[in-house]
Amino acid sequence: MKVSFVGIGLMNGSLSLDLQRLHPDVVLSGISRKTTTLNRAVELGLIQEIGSINQLQDADYVFVSVPVAAIATLLPQVLDAVGENTLVMDFGSTKTAICGAVKNHPKREQFLAAHPIAGTEFSGPDAAIPNLYDGKTIMLCEVAKTRSDLLARATTLLQKLNMTVRHMDPVAHDRHIAYVSHLSHITSFMLGKTVLEKETDEQNIFDMAGSGFASTVRLAKSSPEMWMPIFMQNKHNVLETLNEYISNLNAFKEKLEAEAVDELLADMKEINKIRTILKHK
Amino acid sequence: MKVSFVGIGLMNGSLSLDLQRLHPDVVLSGISRKTTTLNRAVELGLIQEIGSINQLQDADYVFVSVPVAAIATLLPQVLDAVGENTLVMDFGSTKTAICGAVKNHPKREQFLAAHPIAGTEFSGPDAAIPNLYDGKTIMLCEVAKTRSDLLARATTLLQKLNMTVRHMDPVAHDRHIAYVSHLSHITSFMLGKTVLEKETDEQNIFDMAGSGFASTVRLAKSSPEMWMPIFMQNKHNVLETLNEYISNLNAFKEKLEAEAVDELLADMKEINKIRTILKHK
Repeated sequence: MKVSFVGIGLMNGSLSLDLQRLHPDVVLSGISRKTTTLNRAVELGLIQEIGSINQLQDADYVFVSVPVAAIATLLPQVLDAVGENTLVMDFGSTKTAICGAVKNHPKREQFLAAHPIAGTEFSGPDAAIPNLYDGKTIMLCEVAKTRSDLLARATTLLQKLNMTVRHMDPVAHDRHIAYVSHLSHITSFMLGKTVLEKETDEQNIFDMAGSGFASTVRLAKSSPEMWMPIFMQNKHNVLETLNEYISNLNAFKEKLEAEAVDELLADMKEINKIRTILKHK
Repeated sequence: MKVSFVGIGLMNGSLSLDLQRLHPDVVLSGISRKTTTLNRAVELGLIQEIGSINQLQDADYVFVSVPVAAIATLLPQVLDAVGENTLVMDFGSTKTAICGAVKNHPKREQFLAAHPIAGTEFSGPDAAIPNLYDGKTIMLCEVAKTRSDLLARATTLLQKLNMTVRHMDPVAHDRHIAYVSHLSHITSFMLGKTVLEKETDEQNIFDMAGSGFASTVRLAKSSPEMWMPIFMQNKHNVLETLNEYISNLNAFKEKLEAEAVDELLADMKEINKIRTILKHK
């Protein structure tokens, strides 16, 4: 089995570790803009060889996991380069623009748009961890546009990775994911900003911040290079979530100013419902 | 050693587990408004007997860990009831109103105002866990107002619990803690609200929410009965943090609308600084 990674950081690096466990004979090559990333990926054993976009002809899989703006740019070039038996998948956190970028490509049927609901706040090849995908959900979009033998190949691999497949159209995906992923990255970044601006004495943050703050601000450690393009590419939906979030904050603020304790208590009890929904997360 | 708990949930329940390990002969009694809580605490072995506020005469320690409005109300009554060798400590997340409530109490010197930076999103006696306080910071306020032999007793106990003591005046405590704790509870509750309002299909939340969302929204599982009084009692500071947070969100939104990608990227890189400050949290 021959696999090429376009981008070799958290997502593809972690996938490499799992593929090596599942297919000990797998041949792994990597493509990246940065030579340091490629060398580090070789050092860490995430890839065996440094590849190039002109050497994708006989790959069984090409996984494209780079910032979403670069996915949209690179995907047509990757499809141009692959052989007729190659399956190309992307792991981007947005799907509409990415599906749009290859909509009319002659090899569209060799592409499968995917978004694994898996990750950490870390990035780069050193962030790669085994079993990142184990037990997680993967969203697949426009599966009817993927050639059936290639879709079957992907399905088998995702089963081996112990992932749960869910189908959704790209527009719905981007609307929902704005709420349950993109918004929380922004709330976390802005929480970090607010605290850093005010608490100029870092010792106070260190001493007085408990596990609750650490948890809430965790996503503010995420890679700006990865996340800024996501917000931009999903701008329409992200702005909608932001407007609703800010409106909820203003309503809370007004109730607090008015000391409307019964209303605040009732609101918070209602929100506690998230406990049951996320019980096992 | 005789210890009385006023309130027997996460904080005092966890303390009980540690005290029993450190002092196997400790005698533990509990006081609560709710009979079910007391019975459950006995069942769980967190207390040996159900006490009352009139039986605090010979207690070595009384720990008051109830919602902060109730702490301010109960503390004077507790101090009225204790013997001259009793140390009373509270574990509330606000300190100004609580210190104010006993400012002129004749037994003020038997009180030590404390805020351990420790907790989870769960509450009640079943939330008690061993070693909750191990390696954590505890903020002590107005230590000069506590009788020196009682302060020394508290210091010895906190050392045995492996806690790091930090001193701060109550007004500064409440201002700082609004940023690194109270604000993050509100951002988390409002994130939960925004998502629950929009994602009426709970399956979408469950499938598409990854560990990032779960982490950011975790504090929205917290007890409203515990947290609403904290926001109320620290209203002035909490409103200030909320205004700054909302203002940062609006600025982010405007930059996103204007597609000011360089500014967004620079802002996010600056916020990444939280990585180094919270490296070990």
